[in-house]
Amino acid sequence: MTELNVAIIGHQFMGKAHSNAWRQAQTFFDLPAKPVLKVACGRREEPLKAFAENWGWEETETDWRKVVERDDVDIVDVAVPQNLHHDVAVAAAKAGKHVFLEKPMSLSLAEAEEMLSVAEAAGVVHYLNHNYRRTPAVRLARQLIDEGEIGRIFHWRGAYLQDWISDPSFPLTWHLQADKAGSGPHGDLNSHSIDLARYLVGEIDSVCAMTRTFIEERPLPSEGAATFKGGTSGTETGKVTVEDAAFMLASFANGALGSFEASRFATGRKNYNTFEIYGSNGALLFNLERMNELEFLSKKDGDGRQGFRTILATEASHDYIANWWPPGHIIGYEHEFVHAVVDFVDAVANKTAIAPNFADGVAEMRIIAAGLESAATGQRVTV
Amino acid sequence: MTELNVAIIGHQFMGKAHSNAWRQAQTFFDLPAKPVLKVACGRREEPLKAFAENWGWEETETDWRKVVERDDVDIVDVAVPQNLHHDVAVAAAKAGKHVFLEKPMSLSLAEAEEMLSVAEAAGVVHYLNHNYRRTPAVRLARQLIDEGEIGRIFHWRGAYLQDWISDPSFPLTWHLQADKAGSGPHGDLNSHSIDLARYLVGEIDSVCAMTRTFIEERPLPSEGAATFKGGTSGTETGKVTVEDAAFMLASFANGALGSFEASRFATGRKNYNTFEIYGSNGALLFNLERMNELEFLSKKDGDGRQGFRTILATEASHDYIANWWPPGHIIGYEHEFVHAVVDFVDAVANKTAIAPNFADGVAEMRIIAAGLESAATGQRVTV
Amino acid sequence: MTELNVAIIGHQFMGKAHSNAWRQAQTFFDLPAKPVLKVACGRREEPLKAFAENWGWEETETDWRKVVERDDVDIVDVAVPQNLHHDVAVAAAKAGKHVFLEKPMSLSLAEAEEMLSVAEAAGVVHYLNHNYRRTPAVRLARQLIDEGEIGRIFHWRGAYLQDWISDPSFPLTWHLQADKAGSGPHGDLNSHSIDLARYLVGEIDSVCAMTRTFIEERPLPSEGAATFKGGTSGTETGKVTVEDAAFMLASFANGALGSFEASRFATGRKNYNTFEIYGSNGALLFNLERMNELEFLSKKDGDGRQGFRTILATEASHDYIANWWPPGHIIGYEHEFVHAVVDFVDAVANKTAIAPNFADGVAEMRIIAAGLESAATGQRVTV
Amino acid sequence: MTELNVAIIGHQFMGKAHSNAWRQAQTFFDLPAKPVLKVACGRREEPLKAFAENWGWEETETDWRKVVERDDVDIVDVAVPQNLHHDVAVAAAKAGKHVFLEKPMSLSLAEAEEMLSVAEAAGVVHYLNHNYRRTPAVRLARQLIDEGEIGRIFHWRGAYLQDWISDPSFPLTWHLQADKAGSGPHGDLNSHSIDLARYLVGEIDSVCAMTRTFIEERPLPSEGAATFKGGTSGTETGKVTVEDAAFMLASFANGALGSFEASRFATGRKNYNTFEIYGSNGALLFNLERMNELEFLSKKDGDGRQGFRTILATEASHDYIANWWPPGHIIGYEHEFVHAVVDFVDAVANKTAIAPNFADGVAEMRIIAAGLESAATGQRVTV
Repeated sequence: MTELNVAIIGHQFMGKAHSNAWRQAQTFFDLPAKPVLKVACGRREEPLKAFAENWGWEETETDWRKVVERDDVDIVDVAVPQNLHHDVAVAAAKAGKHVFLEKPMSLSLAEAEEMLSVAEAAGVVHYLNHNYRRTPAVRLARQLIDEGEIGRIFHWRGAYLQDWISDPSFPLTWHLQADKAGSGPHGDLNSHSIDLARYLVGEIDSVCAMTRTFIEERPLPSEGAATFKGGTSGTETGKVTVEDAAFMLASFANGALGSFEASRFATGRKNYNTFEIYGSNGALLFNLERMNELEFLSKKDGDGRQGFRTILATEASHDYIANWWPPGHIIGYEHEFVHAVVDFVDAVANKTAIAPNFADGVAEMRIIAAGLESAATGQRVTV
Repeated sequence: MTELNVAIIGHQFMGKAHSNAWRQAQTFFDLPAKPVLKVACGRREEPLKAFAENWGWEETETDWRKVVERDDVDIVDVAVPQNLHHDVAVAAAKAGKHVFLEKPMSLSLAEAEEMLSVAEAAGVVHYLNHNYRRTPAVRLARQLIDEGEIGRIFHWRGAYLQDWISDPSFPLTWHLQADKAGSGPHGDLNSHSIDLARYLVGEIDSVCAMTRTFIEERPLPSEGAATFKGGTSGTETGKVTVEDAAFMLASFANGALGSFEASRFATGRKNYNTFEIYGSNGALLFNLERMNELEFLSKKDGDGRQGFRTILATEASHDYIANWWPPGHIIGYEHEFVHAVVDFVDAVANKTAIAPNFADGVAEMRIIAAGLESAATGQRVTV
Repeated sequence: MTELNVAIIGHQFMGKAHSNAWRQAQTFFDLPAKPVLKVACGRREEPLKAFAENWGWEETETDWRKVVERDDVDIVDVAVPQNLHHDVAVAAAKAGKHVFLEKPMSLSLAEAEEMLSVAEAAGVVHYLNHNYRRTPAVRLARQLIDEGEIGRIFHWRGAYLQDWISDPSFPLTWHLQADKAGSGPHGDLNSHSIDLARYLVGEIDSVCAMTRTFIEERPLPSEGAATFKGGTSGTETGKVTVEDAAFMLASFANGALGSFEASRFATGRKNYNTFEIYGSNGALLFNLERMNELEFLSKKDGDGRQGFRTILATEASHDYIANWWPPGHIIGYEHEFVHAVVDFVDAVANKTAIAPNFADGVAEMRIIAAGLESAATGQRVTV
Repeated sequence: MTELNVAIIGHQFMGKAHSNAWRQAQTFFDLPAKPVLKVACGRREEPLKAFAENWGWEETETDWRKVVERDDVDIVDVAVPQNLHHDVAVAAAKAGKHVFLEKPMSLSLAEAEEMLSVAEAAGVVHYLNHNYRRTPAVRLARQLIDEGEIGRIFHWRGAYLQDWISDPSFPLTWHLQADKAGSGPHGDLNSHSIDLARYLVGEIDSVCAMTRTFIEERPLPSEGAATFKGGTSGTETGKVTVEDAAFMLASFANGALGSFEASRFATGRKNYNTFEIYGSNGALLFNLERMNELEFLSKKDGDGRQGFRTILATEASHDYIANWWPPGHIIGYEHEFVHAVVDFVDAVANKTAIAPNFADGVAEMRIIAAGLESAATGQRVTV
């Protein structure tokens, strides 16, 4: 079988999720080509080596520029924070590598546009990893919409709520700094919702938004502090330069009216990525914390017989599930990454496109930028 | 016991809900004064008489102006559509009657301001019937907030979703005409959410909103068609002049960021009035379709032990419940009206104020107007 | 309109629920005859008079034997504890009165059989008030079964769980004494489940059961202590002579296998009366604490599209609902009693039978007795 | 690091789940010894080789007797149907191998007793894989019980419901034949519930049970038909010799009263393994289809503030979770097997015992046998 050599850039949280996906995809699924875990790249040699050994990456390298230029690398998996997305993805694409890029796309719309144009010019497969599109329940949502079961869509209500920084003593990690993260939950979380909305409802033509920063000043993190539970360096503090919450209303090109609500201050919500879709024939509800379920209401069910139906999307007939376990045996968070690898390898092997890709990333960044502009100016902004 | 003579104006849906409340309040509760169902008023004599006989109203009258001036009337219950609220309430207050007014307040902010000023000048008890404030579960929410169990509030997420006009053949009833209804779900449904948000979170200082009308033209209703399932007159159509959905973002004076989403096109939602409140110490969830329940998450519960707790607000310790049934025996929609009468009679008997009242109505109309202005201009509007 | 004079025996919890029903039935529904609240009967004159005045009973009487023999009484409503059911019901039926009897039927099967035989001989309408049959959601369950939507029924899983006596300091009220109550939750709660199972699934032919008494000795109640929150008389205690929990398995005549689980020690459950029905074509779930909802799964929905659908049984097409409120405006516990009165008055006016009646009560007592026998002997018992 | 050579016997559904666990345990967790996937064993060479290659088993072997006697094998993982459990486990233990045994224990109590006695005599680590004990939410349940948060336990209500054979055309696979499966859902599903009940509540001292077979005759399966969706061989049929459903009541040694309800005919239930535990201080609810959640009610929460709290057991403080993903990122079915391997390797490396083990298996088989005896005789059976 054809082998595809993969280089991964980044070995933190996303490095782990991606590495697992490259491995599991080939044991649980029949792939048209075999991904080889060729080289792992990171700045700190010590943890990088441990990472590579643990996950079976054959080699390590601390300079990502060298990696993306290696002749024996077919795929570059970009699993670093977003301030590096542009540089790595552009270099990889220019070197003719297929790019598997973690979301969000980039720090700015301008970066995103250049990434797309380079990738298209290079003719490589480019993929933006909005992993939630590949949840079987979300795929079922799309199927129901495609089949007309929802009809004309009137509303999208997306919310992505977390609470991991609501404690004022949580340190000023890179996520809270505009130069490293671009924005706060608007880019981090609303971007996921925007991707799902574009996948399920369609294009957005105007938005209005409000953002808020509840804690303006935070202690500096200690060196090497972990992402989600970082220690602090003591009494020094720094300024939070991204929003803590971003609420946005949106008008869709097809006439639907929608909302996007993202927060890191929604006490009690851990990874509460939800959407509601209401249409002329039916409605859909999804909640990532119960990601194996899709709620579906059909007006076909007739007067007095309608209700939201909780479909456990673990049947062999649901996308990807036949390769996992029998009905009712649920899958988890990391499985979405496996599905992404499955489809990406398929695209590379068959020289086809995959979605979402950099073009989707540009569209998404345009909407994100419009939201931030609206929040800043108080004006509705046309996308 | 002192008797309080009540006159009701209106004998449709709200006339029924109010009549029941005047009766049930005095059998289930110990009131400080006895409401007497003195006179019912409506334009069409035939159905009015049947209504009065059924509910035990002693007399009938077709001219509301005569009713509000009767010496033997203490309380005027305004249960007509909102285009008459201003005139009836002003006349009643001027005549020295205590006013029990169904929501929404009025067609316009200007009307509301006059109503308040007249009622205050007259020194009467004035009440605006946002009945949901008197749901035991909502009262519990307020208690938890007052006790500090929620802490600093970061977010309000209110949604009031229905679907009763999503069928294009639903006729052009008065609800869909701006001159009779003022606005669509923004005034009808968001007003309820705004009242709850003001009760639970606080004042709003700026908003941005988007509205949408999905069906621009509808068949005219047949004469005397019922409110919720009206027949149509045939082939003639008319223009819908209110919005079908209204989404609004809001900044609260205390720094919270909130949303209000109202629609009559949310397929599958019947009377889905929900809110979520997230604060520094805890969070609350409410859904009117399960109105006996309040979900409460407390950070006091400690690491790994926190979760949304479904409190069935049917204990004797919950407001109003001791007068109904044992724990777990739920109450329904009409009970909120009974609670409103209980508190209103108490206010009248004890010459105290009650909330929400016309001052709340003015504040609410100000927010509603700001939302409509934002939707029309695309600008964020300071309230 | 024909008038039907009603005498009520009992003025505690059930007296209140029934009185409300006699009143509300005639305001919310169009009845074929008018129930007149003629006379209320109880032993203690003082509270009886207050009760009668509050609910509008025209007269009072402390001797139930006089009441049931009055010529001007058409209907006797038996709302006393079950140790009096037999005597009152037999006397009333012998006197030619129609009998509206609160559940459970009687203290023993022998009593029940005599009650039935007298009532049949007298040719009166006899009704046993298992009010939950008249929940719109339960009626919908029956309709779905009748239409074949569930198919051949494989399983009934009934549970009726409460926790009101789990505190050892809860006093030894009449509910806990075999001579007054017959049995504990087996008779009180399982009887409700048995009635629903017979209504929805069919006859039971054999059972095995286990019961348990967790607290053997309890403080004596103070004089006149309320049912659900009684004070105690001090240090004196007495022996609990009924079970605290009763679990029973049952074989149905149609081949279904079922369970009935009743407890007053299910911490956190207040009035948790639930059932699950699984059949060859579909399944149903019901929970009284969310009594406006029925969950329905249909195999017709096809592979990958099936799920439990939460039907909010508040549409005009659902039984009884058209007389209450619009969709999504829920009803509560007491409404079931109103529905019972509506159907009972209809039966009396039209000289038809109503179910459940004393024949159902006999069948139910037979099953209850079989369960107690099985618990005592350790043998499966044929009903 | 010490290496532990593993031999797996069986390469169907459980072979897959176990193989994955042996791999994932060593990448996601820090183990005290390194499991080496040494040899995979099965009867059919072709699929066995593909299996071994896919999962990284170094060698294959078709004779399990040879495998268990290999000097270089430390651990025998028994992942075959239960009719082989006894022979393989006994031979492995006699050869001094540590045994990782898939549930249920064996075909009969006698077999189980011999397995235990051999394993104890051999001094090997023996483990019975009731994987659900290692769900983080279930571990949390145990912690809450151990800390006294539930108090004296009154009730266990266990149900394990599936529907995979409710279609009469489902073929007569080995699961439906007594000689191969021992029993039906009683052994397959109730055994899981019994294990959880023994883990969480304690020992059982008597039971009564009823079983039922709804479909007596089924088409024979085609050669090599898959377990959960097997094709049939045509028109030939055979007799179902196990029950289709088994309901059992149980008295616990500590006084609790419980129930166990297992069925393969519960339409709409896929892998619905649930329990409810009610105690003097609190209560717990679990549902495997939402296995990341535990519902907990605490009486400490005070009057009017109590409710079932949905704890998302995905915090770093929950057992095993720190090695997976951040809060709110759920895990799935296969993770329980990984946890089992983690703890088993720990037991082998540290020469400690692990639970559940063969002694638990014997206790469980005793209860299962008692249930079957009760179902057959109609008598309550002391365990």
